[in-house]
Parts: sequence; structure tokens; C-alpha cells
Amino acid sequence: MLVNGKAYRTVWMEQGAVKLIDQHQLPHRFEVATLVGFRDTAEAIKTMLVRGAGAIGAAAGYAMAQAVLEAPASGFADFVKGAAEHIRSTRPTAHDLFFAVDQVLDASLKASTPEAAREAAVKTATVLADENARAGERIGEHGVRLLKSGTRILTHCNAGWLAFVDWGSALAPVYMAQRQGVEVFVYVTETRPRSQGAKLTAWELGQAGIPHAIIADTAAGFFFQQRMIDCVIVGADRIAANGDVANKIGTFTLAVLARHHGVPFYVAAPRSTFDLRTPDGAAIRIEERSEDEVLWVSGRSRQGALEQVRIAPEGSPARNPAFDRTPASLVTRFITDGGVFEPSPQAIARFVRGAAPAAIS
Amino acid sequence: MLVNGKAYRTVWMEQGAVKLIDQHQLPHRFEVATLVGFRDTAEAIKTMLVRGAGAIGAAAGYAMAQAVLEAPASGFADFVKGAAEHIRSTRPTAHDLFFAVDQVLDASLKASTPEAAREAAVKTATVLADENARAGERIGEHGVRLLKSGTRILTHCNAGWLAFVDWGSALAPVYMAQRQGVEVFVYVTETRPRSQGAKLTAWELGQAGIPHAIIADTAAGFFFQQRMIDCVIVGADRIAANGDVANKIGTFTLAVLARHHGVPFYVAAPRSTFDLRTPDGAAIRIEERSEDEVLWVSGRSRQGALEQVRIAPEGSPARNPAFDRTPASLVTRFITDGGVFEPSPQAIARFVRGAAPAAIS
Repeated sequence: MLVNGKAYRTVWMEQGAVKLIDQHQLPHRFEVATLVGFRDTAEAIKTMLVRGAGAIGAAAGYAMAQAVLEAPASGFADFVKGAAEHIRSTRPTAHDLFFAVDQVLDASLKASTPEAAREAAVKTATVLADENARAGERIGEHGVRLLKSGTRILTHCNAGWLAFVDWGSALAPVYMAQRQGVEVFVYVTETRPRSQGAKLTAWELGQAGIPHAIIADTAAGFFFQQRMIDCVIVGADRIAANGDVANKIGTFTLAVLARHHGVPFYVAAPRSTFDLRTPDGAAIRIEERSEDEVLWVSGRSRQGALEQVRIAPEGSPARNPAFDRTPASLVTRFITDGGVFEPSPQAIARFVRGAAPAAIS
Repeated sequence: MLVNGKAYRTVWMEQGAVKLIDQHQLPHRFEVATLVGFRDTAEAIKTMLVRGAGAIGAAAGYAMAQAVLEAPASGFADFVKGAAEHIRSTRPTAHDLFFAVDQVLDASLKASTPEAAREAAVKTATVLADENARAGERIGEHGVRLLKSGTRILTHCNAGWLAFVDWGSALAPVYMAQRQGVEVFVYVTETRPRSQGAKLTAWELGQAGIPHAIIADTAAGFFFQQRMIDCVIVGADRIAANGDVANKIGTFTLAVLARHHGVPFYVAAPRSTFDLRTPDGAAIRIEERSEDEVLWVSGRSRQGALEQVRIAPEGSPARNPAFDRTPASLVTRFITDGGVFEPSPQAIARFVRGAAPAAIS
């Protein structure tokens, strides 16, 4: 996607270094970070310099490729397996991360020489990133059929191109609609505690010139009640075999509101987000992050500095579950790179195992 | 209630000046503002130096009393009527404000001399404030019967003593439980955009030593789903004759979540919040406030200064409805100074007209 008129991906590799758009600085500054070694890239994933299921997956694949490039000839396999463990430990919820690490690890361990392993690792990581970008574009092609001129979409957190390598999941149909001249409007929930909606989704939509409004998370119910939301489209961090969805905290609340008001609730995700080894939502561990994310807010001061301010009194504790689980029963349709289909175990299995699901109008 | 061991009310009158706890500074600094004339007090209501239905009502009553004290003997009635209009225009949603202005205005216009009017105005405003404090205590006495040791309560925004003259509405049962040795736990939603939960409710509970945790507004659904919330208690800005409730934005969403999970949803309010002249929620105008409340967040910087930081990109607009309407059908019970009763037009009319509603166990 374009930033100030120049095409970017969220994450890419250049001469052994991983480059990524620094999402800590957005929307206030646009900067590209350079990560020299796999430990740097792992740290960037952990500290959320890069975030979003697809972008984390691509970064993890590149980090794994870096590890293979760094591995000594003696003890090669132990080094790359240890690196894989290290990269896996950065974020517990994102399935794309584990998927990418496994793919690059397998490709490198299958190779007969370290030299061949290095080549296979970089190639596999690159293919994964390319596939992620293409998957987003296909999600857009399938999802755009659910939209028409005037459709008012509610989205949560950031499942736009910044969360992927390109295009995004939830926002891919929005970008595709724009290319086709279909004018939609997007309500963007702030998405506390990290405010990725207000910070990243609003920035993406602003760069693309798509009409939108930021709302406090508390205001979603009001706009449903006023019949000002025609559909919800969110992304996913992991989708279980039965269709339960783990996604950013607050997603479940929006699904309950959508059901209460009879509004379609769509979950957009590429194949790599579906995990047949996870039977249902209950099997997904929910990451609880630092209470400081709730107690403090970061932004740009009137003087232009990036700062944190504490909103809560000293001594008051906070709870900070980072994700929640939306049961399949509250999902209207999945929008995937393989088509739009209902949240049934059968349709999911068909899609993940490679047979295109029957199209649903 | 006690602040650092000393008893305070939220708002009071001292030698013609209105004194109130400056809620812009909380929880970071505890300061008492002195408002010399009725226009100063009106401005304090408008800029939310004082907020919360009961505290606004008391401040408006005192402001009206100040206006009567300031009114010239010639053109007395026109002056106080003009002042009443001015005070009414500060906040459109709070019924307590209109109620207090009308009471003090009526008392002063009924008096035969300006001298008698001044005395009546100050007395009426003082009685209103005293009644508000006593109403809170009675809400506590009635509401505490719904709680037992171990009850985990979710509350929204600030409907504690800072929102009233003393005791509060939603938190009055919590304070009463503490006096009776009943140990409860309170989940406090941040309540963006102004974060009154994280700022004021957490501060109140911390001062009182009541166990609590702040959660992002997005996390409420998660805690319902985990069966970690036993009941919701919120306040109200206005309750219509049919039981529909106007309250802080986000209240409706919590009511939908409570219903979805079969959790009781209680609305605590004194008589002055019920408005029989408002037939239903649709008749309540919803105030839309500045988009800057959504785009910016205020707090205390690491250097200790009160600062605002912008979270959103330049150029992204926001929508900011300040209240929403919860239909009576989602309210389990009202907790009032006259007892606990179901949200029926009959029970409301009985309560407002003065007959104590039949007790409901």
C-alpha cells in the first residue's frame, strides 16, 4: 500500500536484515526499523514494534531465516531449533507466528548442507511473506461482494495492511471496494488499551483517503442501536477447528452487540490463521499483558514529543487480557482467501485442507 | 466520605461562594475550587469541573442560589429567570440539573421580597444538597441487600460519591457493604473517552480501601464470559417514565452483555433522576461532545505534569456521543432511596409520586 505516495510492505528482508515499519511511532511518525540479527527481530515481535497476525508471521519467518543465516556449521540443527524456541516464545497467541517458524525450520532442517539450508530458509520466508500479501488481496476480492456503495462497516483494532504484509484481512475488502469505485464508510473503534484502531487503522484509512470516524470503544453499542452500522468486519489471531475466534480484546463484545441487533458479523482471515489442531476457543490460551497498558496511554504531546501519561491513580491495579474468544455461533461468515463460508467445522476443514469451499452468495 | 482521613462533600456553599472538589485534577491532585459568582459555577458545570448527575444537581442549585443573591432589586425576576436559562444550558442531559434549578427558582419567585427570596434560595439549595447526600445513603441501605461477601460487581463511569454530594448511587451499596463488613470486589471500566472509571471511581475505591481492578472498556465482555462478574451496578443521568435509562456512553453495551450472560443489571439512582415528563428513552436528547475527547487523552506525565496526548493521526475525525439509552427491558431492578423495584412504569410512578414501592426481595 502507498505511504505518502510510495509503495510499502509492512515487513521485508534486505541483505540479511529485516526491515519493518515501526508501529510504535505511528501514527505520529513514519519510520522503518532495521533489525540486524534474529534476536533483534524476535525482540521487535515481543515489544510489538511489529504486530498483527500476518505481519508477526512474516516477521517470525524472516527472523527464523536470519537464525539459519547466523547458525554455525557445527551444532547447526541445535542452534536453529533453539532459535525457533526463542522466536516462538515472543507472543503466545498468534498462530501465524508458529506456522511461519515451523515452515522455515522444516525447510532448513530438510536441506542436506548448511548452505542449502540458508537458501531454503530465506526462500521459504520470502514465499510466506508473498503468500500473505496475496492472501490479503484474495480476501479483498471475496469480501468486497458483501459490500455496496453506502455500506457502513464497523471494524476493531487493526486488521489492515499494517497487520499483514500488505492489504490486510478485515480492511482488504474496504481497499478492494475503493479500487472498484464502491464508496463505503468505516467506524473505527479506538481499541483500548493499545488504541490500535485510533492509531493504526485510522492512519491507514487516512492515507488511503477512505471516509471514516474514530469512536470510543464504549460508543459501539450506541451506533448499533441507531442502526448506523450495516456490518462488522474484524480480523482474527487464531481460528479454532470449530470456528471459535481468538482476536483482540473487545471483539467478543462487538459480536454480542451485532447479534443483539441482527447485524452481520464477519471474520476475515487467511488460511494460516485457521488452526485445526486447536479444537475450540477454550483451548486457546489468552495472553494477559502488563497492567501498565491499561493504566497509561501513549500519544503525541502538544509539543510534538511521543509521551506516556498515566490516567489512573497510584495504587489502583488493572487487569489486562489482550484477547478474547468469540464463539463460532456469533460469526455470520468467514471471509478468507479461499472464499466466504459459514463457520462450520466442515467448511473450515475443507478450506484448510485445500479444497475451495463452496461459494456462499 | 473521607479524603486522606478528612470528611468531604463533593460540593458545598461557603459565604456565598460555591466550593467543589476539582474533578479535572483527580486522581492526580486533590484540589478544592472556589466559584465566586453563578456564572463561574455554571462554567464549572459546563467544563465538567464538577460532573455526575447528583453533584451537577447540587452545583446547579447552589449556582441558582448565587444568582438570586446577585440579582438586583430592580428587574429581580427577569435576572433570576435569565440566570436559570443560563444554568440550564450548561448540560443538556442531566435531569438533576433541571430539577435543582426549578426548585430554587420556584422558591425564590414565590418569596414576597428579594430578601426573603435570597433566604429561600440558599435554604432550598442547601436542602437539595442534604437530600442528595441522604438519598445516597438510603440507596446504599437498600442496595446492600443484593450483595454478599465475595460478590464481584462491575461498574461503569463514576456513580460514586464524587458524582453526588456524598455516598453516590452505584457505589453507595459498595460503601454500605464495607461498613457492614461485607467484602465485595469491584471491576471498574475505564470509561473512555473521559476515563472517569479509571480516574474517579478507582480513586474513590482506593481512598476507601475497597478491592478493585481497572479494566479497559473492551475487556468487559471477557470477564462476563469468564463468569467473573456477578452483577452490574451503574448510575443514571435520567430515567424515563417507562424505565428507559440515559447514562454514560457504554452503559447500553454492558446491559446487552449482562443480558447475554444472564447477569443481573442494576441501575441505582435517587428520586431526582426519574423524570415522569420524559415518556421513554427516545425522548432523551443525547449530547454529542467535542471529538477532541476521543482523539486526545489526558493524564499525568512521568515528570508529574497534567498533560494531554493525541492518540489519533491528524485529519482523522471522531464521533463522540456522550450518553446512550438502555431500554427498561434490559434493566433487572432499580436501586433507589425508596427501595429496590422492577423497571415498570407503575413502580416508577408509585416511587416518584411518593408512595414507597412494594419491597422486592
